[in-house]
Amino acid sequence: MSAERGILYVVGLGPGAEGDLTQNAMAALAEAQDVLGYAPYVARVTLREAQTAIPSDNREELARARDALARVAQGRRVALVSGGDPGVFGMAAAVFEAVDNGPREWRDLDILVIPGVSAMLAAAARIGAPLGGDFCAISLSDNLKSWDRIATRLGHAARGDFVIALYNPASRARPTRIRDAFDVLRTALPGDRAVIFARAIGRPDERVTVTTLKEADLTLADMATLVLIGAAGTRVVARDGAPPFVYTSRASL
Amino acid sequence: MSAERGILYVVGLGPGAEGDLTQNAMAALAEAQDVLGYAPYVARVTLREAQTAIPSDNREELARARDALARVAQGRRVALVSGGDPGVFGMAAAVFEAVDNGPREWRDLDILVIPGVSAMLAAAARIGAPLGGDFCAISLSDNLKSWDRIATRLGHAARGDFVIALYNPASRARPTRIRDAFDVLRTALPGDRAVIFARAIGRPDERVTVTTLKEADLTLADMATLVLIGAAGTRVVARDGAPPFVYTSRASL
Repeated sequence: MSAERGILYVVGLGPGAEGDLTQNAMAALAEAQDVLGYAPYVARVTLREAQTAIPSDNREELARARDALARVAQGRRVALVSGGDPGVFGMAAAVFEAVDNGPREWRDLDILVIPGVSAMLAAAARIGAPLGGDFCAISLSDNLKSWDRIATRLGHAARGDFVIALYNPASRARPTRIRDAFDVLRTALPGDRAVIFARAIGRPDERVTVTTLKEADLTLADMATLVLIGAAGTRVVARDGAPPFVYTSRASL
Repeated sequence: MSAERGILYVVGLGPGAEGDLTQNAMAALAEAQDVLGYAPYVARVTLREAQTAIPSDNREELARARDALARVAQGRRVALVSGGDPGVFGMAAAVFEAVDNGPREWRDLDILVIPGVSAMLAAAARIGAPLGGDFCAISLSDNLKSWDRIATRLGHAARGDFVIALYNPASRARPTRIRDAFDVLRTALPGDRAVIFARAIGRPDERVTVTTLKEADLTLADMATLVLIGAAGTRVVARDGAPPFVYTSRASL
């Protein structure tokens, strides 16, 4: 057991570009001895020689959180990195779930969540201000919740006239979830609703597509895509020789 | 008319601490000639001598957006600053609304929205991971939308089992809105739901209170407060001699 007191930084790396990192995130990454996370996120961090990278696979959130907490309990300064914001479908919930169900002494550890720019904020910024009204965020991943629960939420989001941000619209294990979600949304909403596919925002292969609920090509929604569905007050402002602006009017209908 | 091409940066300053600023935000603020915004946000920016501060009052979003766009049309580099993220109940929607309803040539201006850490992400990070499940954000300001619309949204958010982030819970002009909102929520949800009042996050007078829907003291919700209402999967992890952690289980009921 080290005499040093460990600390866990749960760090939001933002959407992909280094410019979206906050100063707090940079300071935590500089101070960490061990950097844990899903391998592509760990690869985004420039490490000093004295720092140890511990990349892991995507499905191993809870094991990764426990590994990080065990290191902190031994006195290590650990950064657990997450894309976007760690509190939005990222690593933070797994960390506190591990604390809740782990050894009692884990509750006394120093844990600092460092927020970041979430994917939906970055995607919205790229196209205008589609989240300008009331909005909700729904993960279509059904690893940990039932599809019925997701479908019920989509229905309430549509009938409540929220702008809707869909995370995890597709994966190799569940390529059809986005189709099932659009079946729910197309039943509940008019076909001319604005839809945005924002792929790999802040990365070299970034691609933003503005379409409508009726015409949306769902093959555009891969694992790296965030999908935004406009509300009644969402407007598309056409421009000459440039992609349109999309914003949601602050005044609701 | 200047020969320079102007640009509008709509800059998210984050919740309050300088450490929450992104590198992109700092770069835009350094490059701007004019810095416009609600006076307390402009006051947070350290200006060089050559930069002009143009603070304005809270209620003047659209006039401020038009002022910024008119300066850009004249070739100025302008930063329009917003607390948190400009796309979440901030200045970005007002900018694109002004473009939509303004002179046709405003559509050709260079406008770059620079996302920031929104208040709900910062508040969540301070207490754990309460936004770990599906969630929604609702502004209780009824300046631009009817109370009926807000109440309907609150009902759908509650019945859909979303974690709920309430922005603008109170103001001098509408001090009772948080009471009206809790009337809706207390009817729809069990009284033991976790509730968090997160005030002035990142600022010296920061204060975070964890309570329940039944016992919440609504006088805690002032203009600087973000209110989070937990979902069925939200858990409070008690600690000895420290505030509890609050997180929402990634597995929905």
